[in-house]
Amino acid sequence: MKIYETKTAPNPRRVRMFLAEKGIDESQVEYVQVDIQKGENLSAEMRAKNPLGKIPILELDDGTCIAETDAICTYFEAIHPEPSLLGSTPIEKATISMWQRQVEMALMLQVGMCFQHTTGYFKDRMVPVPEYGKEAGINASKYFNILERRLELNEFIAGDTFSIADITALCAIDFARVVDIRIKDEQTNLQRWYDNVSSRASAKA
Amino acid sequence: MKIYETKTAPNPRRVRMFLAEKGIDESQVEYVQVDIQKGENLSAEMRAKNPLGKIPILELDDGTCIAETDAICTYFEAIHPEPSLLGSTPIEKATISMWQRQVEMALMLQVGMCFQHTTGYFKDRMVPVPEYGKEAGINASKYFNILERRLELNEFIAGDTFSIADITALCAIDFARVVDIRIKDEQTNLQRWYDNVSSRASAKA
Repeated sequence: MKIYETKTAPNPRRVRMFLAEKGIDESQVEYVQVDIQKGENLSAEMRAKNPLGKIPILELDDGTCIAETDAICTYFEAIHPEPSLLGSTPIEKATISMWQRQVEMALMLQVGMCFQHTTGYFKDRMVPVPEYGKEAGINASKYFNILERRLELNEFIAGDTFSIADITALCAIDFARVVDIRIKDEQTNLQRWYDNVSSRASAKA
Repeated sequence: MKIYETKTAPNPRRVRMFLAEKGIDESQVEYVQVDIQKGENLSAEMRAKNPLGKIPILELDDGTCIAETDAICTYFEAIHPEPSLLGSTPIEKATISMWQRQVEMALMLQVGMCFQHTTGYFKDRMVPVPEYGKEAGINASKYFNILERRLELNEFIAGDTFSIADITALCAIDFARVVDIRIKDEQTNLQRWYDNVSSRASAKA
């Protein structure tokens, strides 16, 4: 199987890190680079694989294509359940899903909107609204405070165990540097978590 | 168990419809109304249940709280697997997850952003950027075209079988009326799907 991705983009990193945690390496998955700045992801060929024209995309050997980071991770969790990154019991699954979603919507998405709307990186294909980009950046900064409080009482974001929500948060926080949003000195619990998760071998995937 | 919700809001409707499809009724779940226009969701008590201060929230009998529509549905799918709305095989799970996510991000979220940023409904708690709201509305309209093409070849959004992605799309399309985005006369496949899904008993939940 193949994964179409862009090595430097945050969502493909989430997939690579997820697969590294599962012990799935490049002998099992071929990575195909797509230049999103040049718009290679918007070609008719790529839109046939994903109607939204975004990466990453998983292409199975029978030609089935799965887009969306979360969906790709859902596939690998199903075929390779251990170690579990989406939870085992109903409460674990729901708690991880909650935090994964909140980190995505209130952090990763906000950083992405801040980047796209304040830098004009994709201005050939969207209308940047800088005022909205600034609001998105403020939203992302506020979510750092929520994570700080959460990590005061929990080792990992969804609780006692490393999960997909930690992968998403790490990739979002590293991506946030491009819009100059960083962990503050007083966010000591978030920094402790960040140092811990960054030191995993998968963080280099 | 309890679900904190607002009867008229689109995300709580997704949860009610999901539970109706599962045959879970008000003898099993107590619904507690929260007035989001008055900001009741932003109280310290509600933020202790969900740090983002949003509804719906599922509260289990032991006090565990699960926020986020998708996470609540994940919980009920785990404790009540039939009929499956999230898929059974790895490919089904991944395909439904993909479409669910795309309908959420490219339709529901865009309609929500159009509503919040063009009407100023929540202007006591956020800074509306009308120019961005208009862009979000255009994005939502474009996604109707993607659904029209998808439903030319498939009975339901994720394929041959009704799934959570159909629930999300129905609730998003009905919600889109508040910003005057509607199915166009030429979108005959989308209209056929809409009439079919709207006629399910769960659509009235």
